[in-house]
Amino acid sequence: MTKKATRLYPLPAREIPAEAIYEDLELPPKERQDPSRPYVVINMVSSVDGKAAIEGKASGIGDRIDRRAMRNLRSKADAVMIGANTLRAEKVSLGLDQSGPQPLAIILTETGDIPLESKLVGFERQQVLVVAPQRAAERISGRARVLAAPTTPSGGIDLGKVLSILRADYSVAALLVEGGPVLSHALISQCLADALCLTLAPKLIGGPSDQAPTILKGQLLSAEDCSSLKLLSIYLAGSELFLRYSLSPTGVASR
Amino acid sequence: MTKKATRLYPLPAREIPAEAIYEDLELPPKERQDPSRPYVVINMVSSVDGKAAIEGKASGIGDRIDRRAMRNLRSKADAVMIGANTLRAEKVSLGLDQSGPQPLAIILTETGDIPLESKLVGFERQQVLVVAPQRAAERISGRARVLAAPTTPSGGIDLGKVLSILRADYSVAALLVEGGPVLSHALISQCLADALCLTLAPKLIGGPSDQAPTILKGQLLSAEDCSSLKLLSIYLAGSELFLRYSLSPTGVASR
Repeated sequence: MTKKATRLYPLPAREIPAEAIYEDLELPPKERQDPSRPYVVINMVSSVDGKAAIEGKASGIGDRIDRRAMRNLRSKADAVMIGANTLRAEKVSLGLDQSGPQPLAIILTETGDIPLESKLVGFERQQVLVVAPQRAAERISGRARVLAAPTTPSGGIDLGKVLSILRADYSVAALLVEGGPVLSHALISQCLADALCLTLAPKLIGGPSDQAPTILKGQLLSAEDCSSLKLLSIYLAGSELFLRYSLSPTGVASR
Repeated sequence: MTKKATRLYPLPAREIPAEAIYEDLELPPKERQDPSRPYVVINMVSSVDGKAAIEGKASGIGDRIDRRAMRNLRSKADAVMIGANTLRAEKVSLGLDQSGPQPLAIILTETGDIPLESKLVGFERQQVLVVAPQRAAERISGRARVLAAPTTPSGGIDLGKVLSILRADYSVAALLVEGGPVLSHALISQCLADALCLTLAPKLIGGPSDQAPTILKGQLLSAEDCSSLKLLSIYLAGSELFLRYSLSPTGVASR
């Protein structure tokens, strides 16, 4: 890859090789070391009209440079997490392209219905942890390491408690979450996400929401949710934008 | 307003007063004078998760600087167009804040059901043109000037022919379209839009698509539609981004 990119913000702007997007990022940021849970970065791609997938698949939206930026983010994280829907929708890799140490791959599932062997590329060379409620754990038993997840009164996975366990027992200080929209929404609505990296691909997709969903799926976010963003950095490659924001409760700006 | 903004792209970056966003824009661009139809700019605002309205209203998404940028765009256009759904959803102004010459306000309606008097702010001091099929024209008669629109075989307004009439008979060389999502999608899918200005507000909205729609409403866009974007400029004010793109058929880059 010989393309160029520009880090437009913070100023001053400077040209970099396109493969260096997010390469200088430090996760977790020095000032955000928190012993109680990992620093959580959500990374997603969308079209300019806000669509994060076409018929369930995100892979056609970003380009080669987005793929590389995603790999750079993964290389900064201790673990990379996705929800089971995302794994069922298409073949995914949660690792780095090069050999060497890989982040822990974490799959969240309520039911245990996860096609690890057929859909997780590089399944053999990466440590995999499946987070599932006790009732679903036996469906995974023997196929991957399982974290029996604490549940909420309604029976869903308690994300806050899972993050605490990942920090305390698995040494995950920086967690990269790559969707899907249900998991990302759940983290944001519980104020469990610290940053959002959004690749804005220079295209328009259209389509109804069941065929072309947005990056978040769930109810309207309220002022108490961490839905207020502060722009941290912008990279530009061609017409593709790489936006990084911090998240905080509405009206509160934080880094 | 004493806030600052930065024009980040094209480089070099430079600081400007926040009220100057889009003030130096020339519509239509010199090299895009076309005697057959107006140069069409779509201007919309969305949250970072792609939502263009909350319960039908776009007014809560952008801030005061977005409102000013929108006024600056209007001051460059000969006419400002919206669809009737947008007018029914909330009170809108299609004019400039200051007195003096105003762009022509154009409302598109299939049915003639438009609450001009109650919803169009500044109705009295601005020329208003309602574009409606002949069958709906009598509902407007006497309330505003009416353009009896040519229709397609399926009975809808023929947007291409309407644009030609606006150029030839109303001297509209630059047309600003402020949505809603149905009208914007129709223009893009028929390759009748030249540029898209998107204000990306630093917030997350969530919610189902019927409560919080995206900027485009319609079927999936295909490679033949003008759904491929080229970034023309970026302004930044606080954490709010003002993105301007040109539109072209997929794979074709144009200015």
